[in-house]
Amino acid sequence: MKKRVVTISRKHGSGGRTIGHMLEERLGIKCYDQQLIEMIAKESGFATDFIEENGEKVTNSLLFNIATSLTFAYNTFSQERMSLQDQLFMTQGRVIKELADKEPCIIVGSCADYFLAEREDVLNVFIHSDKEHRKKIAVEKYGYSPKEVDGILNRKDRERASHYRYYTERDWADASNYHVCLDSGMYGMEKCADIIADLYRID
Amino acid sequence: MKKRVVTISRKHGSGGRTIGHMLEERLGIKCYDQQLIEMIAKESGFATDFIEENGEKVTNSLLFNIATSLTFAYNTFSQERMSLQDQLFMTQGRVIKELADKEPCIIVGSCADYFLAEREDVLNVFIHSDKEHRKKIAVEKYGYSPKEVDGILNRKDRERASHYRYYTERDWADASNYHVCLDSGMYGMEKCADIIADLYRID
Repeated sequence: MKKRVVTISRKHGSGGRTIGHMLEERLGIKCYDQQLIEMIAKESGFATDFIEENGEKVTNSLLFNIATSLTFAYNTFSQERMSLQDQLFMTQGRVIKELADKEPCIIVGSCADYFLAEREDVLNVFIHSDKEHRKKIAVEKYGYSPKEVDGILNRKDRERASHYRYYTERDWADASNYHVCLDSGMYGMEKCADIIADLYRID
Repeated sequence: MKKRVVTISRKHGSGGRTIGHMLEERLGIKCYDQQLIEMIAKESGFATDFIEENGEKVTNSLLFNIATSLTFAYNTFSQERMSLQDQLFMTQGRVIKELADKEPCIIVGSCADYFLAEREDVLNVFIHSDKEHRKKIAVEKYGYSPKEVDGILNRKDRERASHYRYYTERDWADASNYHVCLDSGMYGMEKCADIIADLYRID
């Protein structure tokens, strides 16, 4: 079946977001990344900073738990006893499903592969590369300190894996969740985008 | 760097072995699969049936443990206190490393990606597909009964995963272990072979 939507899950610093934008040019369809966060912000009332910080991790911070308790109290009469984290996850799902209904597109992150699992016209992609390659990209692109970058990448990997596991009950980096997984460090981002674009175009 | 060796890890029934032989034709290099088992048999003295049965699983059978105990007793003076399973694994590694030194080739199974991890000229591939697709192939190709095929595939998956984890301390289906992972059920084995051959030829 011809594909309509590409979802890209990616290890931090592997260039998954950049590959998404390369695909946008090659396929002539929109890549939702920062704009997805803004749409979720608009839909949910959460700040974009909050979504960027909490959209792909399960948090246990004290402040977050206090805010969640207050929300519980506030929502008692409406029976909506969801945590803020759960509310954010539900909103992500709603926005992503609406996007996939509305237009062919590329969606980066936010467990999009999980939310769209019932559609057959979705190509699920996972991008990774070895730690040294990711450290180099992360320092150059995100401005992390060379001393701290290893710890930051380890933390991001753990956060994304546990967030994905918590909500989907699947392993985030398990190849079986995706139609194609590529090491962007071995062949470069352009080649990854070529392969994905080729698969997307198959009838 | 131009690749010399392709390793193919695969879920049972996903067509990884067939893709290996398609690559043999496309690339003009030999695919070691059944012949690898025969080479390991010759090197180790184990029967081919024993290698096929135990080469990709960690066994706990009583008979196997008795045989291992006898081997321990026999080897006490030579300080080689390895189980039969460990001896088989060590022989697999030696044969695979010799093959990679000897000629460009394709190696199916046997943790080849792990044994060749220090080489930079190896392309590591993982092939999988969804359970319904694998069940269909396994019934047609291996003659499993339709009633039993689901249980057989689950057992094979568990065996390969635990064998890989036991010896490599890594997750078998983790995309990060491989340069490319492909869902053969989505795009077919020919397309998978095309993508792998294309990556193999890149300088």
